[in-house]
Amino acid sequence: MSEKYVYFFAEGKADGNGQMKDELGGKGAGLAEMTNAGLPVPPGFTVSTRVCRLYFESSGKLSPEIEDQCRQAASRLEKVTAQAFGSKQNPLLVSVRSGGKFSMPGMMDTILNLGLNDDTVQTLARKTGNPRFAMDCYRRFIQMFGNVVLEISKEEFEHIFDGAKKKRKVRLDTELTAAALEEVIRDYKKLVEKKTKSPFPQDPWKQLTMARDAVFGSWHNPRAVHYRRMNQISESLGTAVNVQSMVYGNLSDNSGTGVGFTRNPSTGEKQFYGEFLMNAQGEDVVAGIRTPIPIEQLKSILPDVYHQLRETTNRLEHHYKDVQDFEFTIQDGKLYMLQTRNGKRTGPAAVKIAVDMVAEGLLTKQEALMRVEPSQLDQLLHPILDESKPVKVIATGLPASPGAAVGEIVFTADEAAHLGKKKPVILVRKETVPDDIHGMEVAAGILTSRGGMTSHAAVVARGMGKCCVAGAESIDVDYKNRRMIVGKLSLKEGDWISLDGSTGRVILGKVPTTEADPSTGEFAKFMGWADEFRKLGVRANADIPRDAAVARRFGAQGIGLCRTEHMFFAEDRIRHMQAMILASTEKDRRKALNKLLPMQRKDFAGLFRVMEGLPVIIRLLDPPLHEFLPKREDLMVEIALLRERTPRSKKIKEKEALLNRVEQLHEMNPMLGLRGCRLGIVYPEITEMQARAIFEAACQVTKEGKKVIPEIMIPLISSPREFTLQKELVDTVAKQVLSKSGVKLKYMVGTMIEIPRAALLAGQIAQDAEFFSFGTNDLTQTTYGFSRDDSGKFLAPYVALGILPQDPFAVLDRDGVGQLIRMCTENGRKARPGLEVGICGEHGGDPSSVNFCHQVGLDYVSCSPYRVPIARLAAAQAAIAKGSDEMKRTA
Amino acid sequence: MSEKYVYFFAEGKADGNGQMKDELGGKGAGLAEMTNAGLPVPPGFTVSTRVCRLYFESSGKLSPEIEDQCRQAASRLEKVTAQAFGSKQNPLLVSVRSGGKFSMPGMMDTILNLGLNDDTVQTLARKTGNPRFAMDCYRRFIQMFGNVVLEISKEEFEHIFDGAKKKRKVRLDTELTAAALEEVIRDYKKLVEKKTKSPFPQDPWKQLTMARDAVFGSWHNPRAVHYRRMNQISESLGTAVNVQSMVYGNLSDNSGTGVGFTRNPSTGEKQFYGEFLMNAQGEDVVAGIRTPIPIEQLKSILPDVYHQLRETTNRLEHHYKDVQDFEFTIQDGKLYMLQTRNGKRTGPAAVKIAVDMVAEGLLTKQEALMRVEPSQLDQLLHPILDESKPVKVIATGLPASPGAAVGEIVFTADEAAHLGKKKPVILVRKETVPDDIHGMEVAAGILTSRGGMTSHAAVVARGMGKCCVAGAESIDVDYKNRRMIVGKLSLKEGDWISLDGSTGRVILGKVPTTEADPSTGEFAKFMGWADEFRKLGVRANADIPRDAAVARRFGAQGIGLCRTEHMFFAEDRIRHMQAMILASTEKDRRKALNKLLPMQRKDFAGLFRVMEGLPVIIRLLDPPLHEFLPKREDLMVEIALLRERTPRSKKIKEKEALLNRVEQLHEMNPMLGLRGCRLGIVYPEITEMQARAIFEAACQVTKEGKKVIPEIMIPLISSPREFTLQKELVDTVAKQVLSKSGVKLKYMVGTMIEIPRAALLAGQIAQDAEFFSFGTNDLTQTTYGFSRDDSGKFLAPYVALGILPQDPFAVLDRDGVGQLIRMCTENGRKARPGLEVGICGEHGGDPSSVNFCHQVGLDYVSCSPYRVPIARLAAAQAAIAKGSDEMKRTA
Repeated sequence: MSEKYVYFFAEGKADGNGQMKDELGGKGAGLAEMTNAGLPVPPGFTVSTRVCRLYFESSGKLSPEIEDQCRQAASRLEKVTAQAFGSKQNPLLVSVRSGGKFSMPGMMDTILNLGLNDDTVQTLARKTGNPRFAMDCYRRFIQMFGNVVLEISKEEFEHIFDGAKKKRKVRLDTELTAAALEEVIRDYKKLVEKKTKSPFPQDPWKQLTMARDAVFGSWHNPRAVHYRRMNQISESLGTAVNVQSMVYGNLSDNSGTGVGFTRNPSTGEKQFYGEFLMNAQGEDVVAGIRTPIPIEQLKSILPDVYHQLRETTNRLEHHYKDVQDFEFTIQDGKLYMLQTRNGKRTGPAAVKIAVDMVAEGLLTKQEALMRVEPSQLDQLLHPILDESKPVKVIATGLPASPGAAVGEIVFTADEAAHLGKKKPVILVRKETVPDDIHGMEVAAGILTSRGGMTSHAAVVARGMGKCCVAGAESIDVDYKNRRMIVGKLSLKEGDWISLDGSTGRVILGKVPTTEADPSTGEFAKFMGWADEFRKLGVRANADIPRDAAVARRFGAQGIGLCRTEHMFFAEDRIRHMQAMILASTEKDRRKALNKLLPMQRKDFAGLFRVMEGLPVIIRLLDPPLHEFLPKREDLMVEIALLRERTPRSKKIKEKEALLNRVEQLHEMNPMLGLRGCRLGIVYPEITEMQARAIFEAACQVTKEGKKVIPEIMIPLISSPREFTLQKELVDTVAKQVLSKSGVKLKYMVGTMIEIPRAALLAGQIAQDAEFFSFGTNDLTQTTYGFSRDDSGKFLAPYVALGILPQDPFAVLDRDGVGQLIRMCTENGRKARPGLEVGICGEHGGDPSSVNFCHQVGLDYVSCSPYRVPIARLAAAQAAIAKGSDEMKRTA
Repeated sequence: MSEKYVYFFAEGKADGNGQMKDELGGKGAGLAEMTNAGLPVPPGFTVSTRVCRLYFESSGKLSPEIEDQCRQAASRLEKVTAQAFGSKQNPLLVSVRSGGKFSMPGMMDTILNLGLNDDTVQTLARKTGNPRFAMDCYRRFIQMFGNVVLEISKEEFEHIFDGAKKKRKVRLDTELTAAALEEVIRDYKKLVEKKTKSPFPQDPWKQLTMARDAVFGSWHNPRAVHYRRMNQISESLGTAVNVQSMVYGNLSDNSGTGVGFTRNPSTGEKQFYGEFLMNAQGEDVVAGIRTPIPIEQLKSILPDVYHQLRETTNRLEHHYKDVQDFEFTIQDGKLYMLQTRNGKRTGPAAVKIAVDMVAEGLLTKQEALMRVEPSQLDQLLHPILDESKPVKVIATGLPASPGAAVGEIVFTADEAAHLGKKKPVILVRKETVPDDIHGMEVAAGILTSRGGMTSHAAVVARGMGKCCVAGAESIDVDYKNRRMIVGKLSLKEGDWISLDGSTGRVILGKVPTTEADPSTGEFAKFMGWADEFRKLGVRANADIPRDAAVARRFGAQGIGLCRTEHMFFAEDRIRHMQAMILASTEKDRRKALNKLLPMQRKDFAGLFRVMEGLPVIIRLLDPPLHEFLPKREDLMVEIALLRERTPRSKKIKEKEALLNRVEQLHEMNPMLGLRGCRLGIVYPEITEMQARAIFEAACQVTKEGKKVIPEIMIPLISSPREFTLQKELVDTVAKQVLSKSGVKLKYMVGTMIEIPRAALLAGQIAQDAEFFSFGTNDLTQTTYGFSRDDSGKFLAPYVALGILPQDPFAVLDRDGVGQLIRMCTENGRKARPGLEVGICGEHGGDPSSVNFCHQVGLDYVSCSPYRVPIARLAAAQAAIAKGSDEMKRTA
């Protein structure tokens, strides 16, 4: 038996099927699948990917056997369509499309209306009663064929076409009449003849073989090669060619075309949803010249077709087990499905559909969980913009913290704090600093023109669950004149803007918002399923009881990161903090620390109460001390002006002394400076105070009858002994406090792994450390040598050039950072079996990163409170995907 | 046969030998070795480390067998010395010392004169004719025994002693008479009785067993435990106890004591060298009360002893195959060797001695090479301070760049440039910046109060071979008043200071210097041997032809790193560089780059000429651009003052525009910002210009008939594709330039590995990269998360606390950074067999790091020109050490 190279599909029966993507490509396999499912698909055939490979092996010459199979398939197609290539009565017109195993930009696209020639175009004109339409089809066919098959540049065709418009003094393509288009066709054919030394091929069979070979040839065009190299797709796969008969919705009054969804994509309700136009083609629906009709009305126009469509789409939904977004054409009363794909939907719809489909028995719980993009859950947790009316997007930044916010512009944190109590305000800054917290807390949303996904504004806003768009670089913030400039637009304080923190859009004016309700039955049920399947624990990053309470409500199983430094920025504390830093002796430092002790104790007690019975990881002081001090350059200017204005003022000396200390603390690269455990090593009294506050609070809350599980985390370890020294200090304080209060308490002391060297020396560190938590923000920073604060300048071009698949501060880099995480986890657990290992960087809330954490076998991920449900779902999906992978492997 | 616990040594014969360090400890093995070599060593015995282990196993109770062996050894000692414990005629007095396998601080030290009691002290007084001496010995013995054996605090003894001085109104210990000391002894004994409820032990045998057990006990004292933990010395080793009979140089006029060297330790000349005092003890020589006599005069006083000493020390030198630094005592005309050790010597002496000893047949070349500390070679390459007269050290900083410098203080680079042409000046700065180069070039030496071994001042000074002391933190530099303050000392401009860049000392006033001559025959011969044995290549880091020429003279086999950015700081270039940076369009940027092109071409041509026939690695632009711009804070002050003084000045707008651009380029952490290849990716025209300059220069010099071997190095790679994109650009330019000039040229394009992710992804990077060079400064920075510029604040406490064994920017960290280097090299070579791998960070000139590079199998190290000989020697030592290790393993 001879080998099979060409796969036919028509009338409920296809040679291939949906599994044969290797051989038929994605598109060909899909067409076979739909045909086999009995759906009314325009018939056609697929030339297999193997032919493509043979085409290259034999330098573009196909064997007679293959040519023969192609011809046979074409004949069959003529038979089932009762049409024939080149026939003046019933000409067969086809589309020709490429289609590899993976969808791939850069490959030759669609050629439509192949089979048209000087004769058949007349038939088409006659049959559609629309000579203009027929001529335009022919004109487009020659242009496309001329360009992609004959390699004549687009510009030359456009030059002719533009000439025709100019000559007739019209502006729009559609204003050209059939006669004018006939002239264009004549000139196009002349161009082809001049360029190829041979007339435009009139033989449809010749057109077809040429188009087929051009598809094969396009496999090696530079864009496709580049794409495959970047996406590590093998060069040897090759592409298939799909040939499918054309259908027309504008052939008669019994024809039409439309689009629809099997369920409402906004709400998820089970409701047939869509619109159509009679005697029209797809273009007309999209162009908006005629207003489409709601799909229910098809029932009265063509009841049989309507019922067939409902039944067909129902079958599609059952077949694909998902909402279908379909396109159909009715040609002379006969329904054809042109395309169907899983429908895009909103977050609330996604959850509702998933839950409904389980109830309907269409999906298992696992399948339902896999159907919802974790990031879509955001829409159930935050208000969203109601975009039923068009909006004017004036800039786009990074979607730094989801939700929607609408308010008046203010440019300083003080104004935000002041005005934000009376009306909604959007705080607009170049970037935010810890001093701005009071304004950020009150603002409805935050917009910055600088900084990335892990900039101060972004991190703090996510922690607060507050909408934030960061790094909208096209915006120029002019503090002096209190305005922001975007292109030619200048907005001043008090002007209204709206932010979409889920997409990064900045919108002019007031857009209404709708609150979503996360406590709906469906959401709760859905998240319950996620918890059934996931293996990874999910904790939250929260610094204060309010955030911890939110996190717990969203299902957090503990606090994975409490950043104690955030507690020091409050107004009543920062002066003690400053006094502590400015102290030049240990005694003075201790004096200031003693003031801070009761405040910290209260903070921790609050946190322990909220998190009763769940573990709470408290990280000791981490950031560089100068963050708490006035800015060096401000002081320099201040002193220069004082000297100028009041040279004898005593203030000068005072300010100079302050500047002197600030200079001493100044660092060229504060991220790599005196911070983290380095502070606790150089100033052990800081660690001592914090440990004391933790244990005193823990004892207090324990005595209230609540179970407290503190885990103390030492940040920024790079040498095992750093950890050991700090742990000894914590243990000493713990012993003192516990024995004094008589409380029995289990606690752990562990470390953050956020420096490559700590990851490399994990085996040694785990000898003393009782848990690890990956601080992937810093670890990404040092592994790449990218400053989070500064990488905005080059991350965008890096992603554009394909150097990075995405921002590594948003999606965990598996190759580099991931390699360290894997090594570290393995070596850590080798040294201390059962070592608790988690992640508390921003990546803890990113689904793809959560998947990686599952694969590596971490115990938990920790993320900002509003991302807890996302992490729960992502964890479930990772477990389900891995499970099914393993089933495949063992099968 | 019963087990052996105690090892006797006397009169040319010892039970043990020099190899038995495990059993006898280092000191015990040494005493056995010397005895066996026939040297006149005071006899004694060693209680083995095994006894120590048994002591702890049996909770401090030793078996009768062991006690018996101790007693037998003591009897033998009495016999060979013709003395007896407690004898009133000839009392045996001994010293008791600890001695583990490794020398270890914190262990019990020496107890001298054990055996003294109320009777024997009288004998000693009589025999020495010096009752005061005898009483002082007894007093010291009781105090030491009381403190370390009986655990009575030192303070209590000192209280008594001070009371005695006060009572007699004397200031110095030596002013107390024998009678007074007798009173002190009485009070000491009372104190002992009161504290221990038992009189001071008078029985020498009891004294000895108590002392022995106290030595064992001290194995577990906290300082020793801490030291072992830090140095990873096993707890289970235990210590030995050495008991040795005392000898006295002040027993008679036929007695004496002295010290000496077998060769001159300053010059290396073969010359018996030393001094002595008759009828004196060691203390007297050290105390400087009596002036010692040159050792040659001993020949006329005690000719036999002199000859015996010459012959003995000759034997010692032959035995240890090294210059000996010895101490001897003559007791009643009999010579005793108290100690001998390899003598410390200057660099020139070390080389001369090594070369001489090979000529004498005493050493093989390999042994000779192992005898010289590589860092000592510095003294042969730089002038050194002549310290024949005492100097006043006023501060100590880091030994940032070796050599000596003497000059008048100046505080600005401009002054240095101005005055430095007329007289020697020392440039004193808080820290230096690239703008200071013109002053640094002219200054005799550089002193900074901030920054580490890799600060700008240190790196630039080493490159220039100029003396530099960096980070002398006790110095307060007061620019405003043009003075520097150290403690209470205030030095002003024009005052003289001297710097020792090899030790980091800052010395008040003018110290004379001596120039060393690196072209001496011995040096050249010695370095030739090094080259015979080393496997590692040695290249130099040099940016300009002058430095390259120095490097070549010192034996560099190529340039391992040419930092092109250093070329941009020259006055005629920085403005084009600034124009390039300030350009807001590619066109303007190219315009400025075109101005720089001919200058760079000239630089490279110069370098290629000097390095004819040797490879030259040129690194593309690396530092953050803002380094080339005015300082942000300076501009802010300037603008504030302009606004205040001349609010209508047009200059304000101008400065504001400049500030605006500077702000745009400002980075929070410039080390992790837009620099390295990130510049070349974002602004490919920079890479293009540099590649063009390199290849045009290479073609030009090739046409002059010189062989050029360029290697282009892409800095700061973190992703494989970054490299690929930059390499494509370089290759494209190379093709253009080479085909235009018709020159055939082999070149390589490789990358610096200085980011952990690059090390982790080495396998992928090596697919395109033709060589790797470890930039260990940056790699250390990112692996540790330590900023070079800022880590000064915590590195000192880190080293003090044992967190770091040393500054990781000076000595390569093998555990972390080294692990990455090893992985990277292996994976890189797996992907590209024969991949050239080197190191060009500051570590390339550090002997211990060079040793590591040899172990990992790198191809070469590259260091600053003046360290090239050091690296050559270190490389030879690494090869020899590894070779002998391997021989040991195969033996």
